[in-house]
Amino acid sequence: MNNNAPQTLKGFRDFLPETMAVRNYVKNLFIETFETFGFEPLETPTLEYASTLMGKYGDEADKLIYSFTDKGGRQIGLRYDLTVPTAKVLAMYPNISLPFKRYQIQSLWRADKPQKGRYREFVQSDVDIFGTNSPIADAEIVAVIYTTLKKLNFKKFSIRINSRPVLKNILTQSGIENNQNSALQSLDKFNKIGQDGVQKELISKDFSQAQINNLFKYIKIAQPDENLQAVFAAIKAFGVPETAYVFDPTMVRGLDYYTGTIFETYVEEPRIGSITGGGRYDNLIKTLGGPDIPAVGTTLGLDRIVDCIIELNLLPNLPKTKVKIMVTNFGVDTLNKSLELTSLLRQNNIAATFYPDADKIGKQLKYASAKNIPYVALIGSDEAAKNEVTFKNMLTGEQKTLTQDEIVDFMLK
Amino acid sequence: MNNNAPQTLKGFRDFLPETMAVRNYVKNLFIETFETFGFEPLETPTLEYASTLMGKYGDEADKLIYSFTDKGGRQIGLRYDLTVPTAKVLAMYPNISLPFKRYQIQSLWRADKPQKGRYREFVQSDVDIFGTNSPIADAEIVAVIYTTLKKLNFKKFSIRINSRPVLKNILTQSGIENNQNSALQSLDKFNKIGQDGVQKELISKDFSQAQINNLFKYIKIAQPDENLQAVFAAIKAFGVPETAYVFDPTMVRGLDYYTGTIFETYVEEPRIGSITGGGRYDNLIKTLGGPDIPAVGTTLGLDRIVDCIIELNLLPNLPKTKVKIMVTNFGVDTLNKSLELTSLLRQNNIAATFYPDADKIGKQLKYASAKNIPYVALIGSDEAAKNEVTFKNMLTGEQKTLTQDEIVDFMLK
Repeated sequence: MNNNAPQTLKGFRDFLPETMAVRNYVKNLFIETFETFGFEPLETPTLEYASTLMGKYGDEADKLIYSFTDKGGRQIGLRYDLTVPTAKVLAMYPNISLPFKRYQIQSLWRADKPQKGRYREFVQSDVDIFGTNSPIADAEIVAVIYTTLKKLNFKKFSIRINSRPVLKNILTQSGIENNQNSALQSLDKFNKIGQDGVQKELISKDFSQAQINNLFKYIKIAQPDENLQAVFAAIKAFGVPETAYVFDPTMVRGLDYYTGTIFETYVEEPRIGSITGGGRYDNLIKTLGGPDIPAVGTTLGLDRIVDCIIELNLLPNLPKTKVKIMVTNFGVDTLNKSLELTSLLRQNNIAATFYPDADKIGKQLKYASAKNIPYVALIGSDEAAKNEVTFKNMLTGEQKTLTQDEIVDFMLK
Repeated sequence: MNNNAPQTLKGFRDFLPETMAVRNYVKNLFIETFETFGFEPLETPTLEYASTLMGKYGDEADKLIYSFTDKGGRQIGLRYDLTVPTAKVLAMYPNISLPFKRYQIQSLWRADKPQKGRYREFVQSDVDIFGTNSPIADAEIVAVIYTTLKKLNFKKFSIRINSRPVLKNILTQSGIENNQNSALQSLDKFNKIGQDGVQKELISKDFSQAQINNLFKYIKIAQPDENLQAVFAAIKAFGVPETAYVFDPTMVRGLDYYTGTIFETYVEEPRIGSITGGGRYDNLIKTLGGPDIPAVGTTLGLDRIVDCIIELNLLPNLPKTKVKIMVTNFGVDTLNKSLELTSLLRQNNIAATFYPDADKIGKQLKYASAKNIPYVALIGSDEAAKNEVTFKNMLTGEQKTLTQDEIVDFMLK
């Protein structure tokens, strides 16, 4: 390697096969679960007009969008979330039947400071239901979160549920009529900095002691309103156990566009923040220039969930490689028989690799071992003459002589 | 919708569920086939240092790279192909066991003029074998192309095979010692503009009539050299029928970095150019600042292949939706029973959707019909009281009364 050796950009990652295996396990489990719930796949472009992206996420977020001018002079940017592009789709394709339940699993780009669990390129998985304001849709989002996390073997997690109307009502009761969003931003930190921390911040924002005392009082006695009660009833009817979710009147969610129920999921260990977040946003599509379509949904952060299940040791026993058998190479004299076996295995959908060079057999076996390939088939000149194969179990070292068909039969079991 | 209605950039596409179904069918068939051949998944970032991308594809191609300066002042660009990023990976991670067989299915971006079959964002699928110069590896690439296209139901296709050393030998024999690459660029058009067209172009480039006559003479009598013979022998040993591939001494491939065997696949109908292209490129990784690792591989263009199988009507009978059953909504009194059935179906991995609003039953059935959902389960107050379900086949209109468990049993069949 020389001084010009290429590098990967900070906050970006190359995924080698072993990491891909874990990511694909999670991604495929997401897809299976989402499809069982009747969600259908959607994908949108990586690049969009900057005008589609800007001004939707708040000023701070706008700064994190990768935007630039293309060679045709267009202001464009990379996908920042999956909600705004889908809202664009709903605005552009009026023939989509409603309710529309879609899932979308794609990369996002944010020019954020990279740190543990935060990357500049990462994958989010969104499930959303468009075209209904039924509380059952809100409940279904909670049910799909619960089912997905259960299937991933998560044991201790809590889906916190609240609603923007409940929060606004608490603020109004507390005498906070102005700067409600500012008060909510402080309250959002309750879980991180505690009641004392929130109090300090509210004082510094010139809320009165009476307002603050009222706020904490009304939060303590807050109850779900009628709509949120219907959401909870439907969550129960979907069979989600009551230990998995909780009404949390301190939970706010950052984004301004939520209009109804909001939810996010925390795992207690490890402390890496929320692994899902979402809510109801009935006005966003209209704001984006589309029709008046109510919407509710959630994001599941694939990268955080992958990090989490590795740290919590929740992975099932994934094979280190999908290659089931390696056929060795004894040179040109036995090549035909060896490639014949390789092809026969593949025709039976058994993942087989052929070692391409006639290296010393020790080197070939060492390679199979390094790659964690469980079986090796050897066809030397003796075996070729007798139409046989030496079949080796790489874990036990056991060897036996079989025909090609017997190997296929064994591998299919 | 107002005047600010968002648009998708030209050359970019939104993929709605029906299109996604076709793309996922092709993509999953690729993955299954590649894994059967022992290829393992790899992914690289969307954004790379511009210095990694620039100067690898030729001056014309460099102009098509989406490049810009990020907020940290770095010159960066979007992925232009999958070969250079993988070469970067091999340069960066010296512990990868060789031979390394990887597949990579990711989007690319090229600021090209959009036209039929050419998009600014598109997906390529690459299979490559790194770390061996064995002709068997070249043959295996041809075998994986053949197997993939067969599984996709392609009937008439031709994998054209040639080699750069064979071409160089023809040029040298013809007395073309200088400007060999320029001569090859003209010869590359043989299939499009014919021998007369190539001749005209070579004359305009000041090649002599004697050189040109020799060139066509030696092409006509060209034979595979020793290495290419070994490739053909191994292709045969892999069981690829001789009707599927051909030695074509007029085939050149555009890119400069090929050093050995080259191959591309044409379908006769529709005429949309090549659907696969690749070859051996033993010097590229070293050129990129990596170790000296020989490589051979191919690209399968997912978008062109999708366009092609739609035009040729090669698609299997894909269901219009993966949703198998819709549970209707008769309001709050029967909600619990309805959601119980929905959850029971999902627990048995039957894709079920619940209609979230208590709309008129006619509207709900119309929706199921529009979404091509094959079955509908209705639980009104009568059914709920008797613990029964009305089960409707949407295709035949047939209805019967079943228990929840009987519906699950039926749907599992």
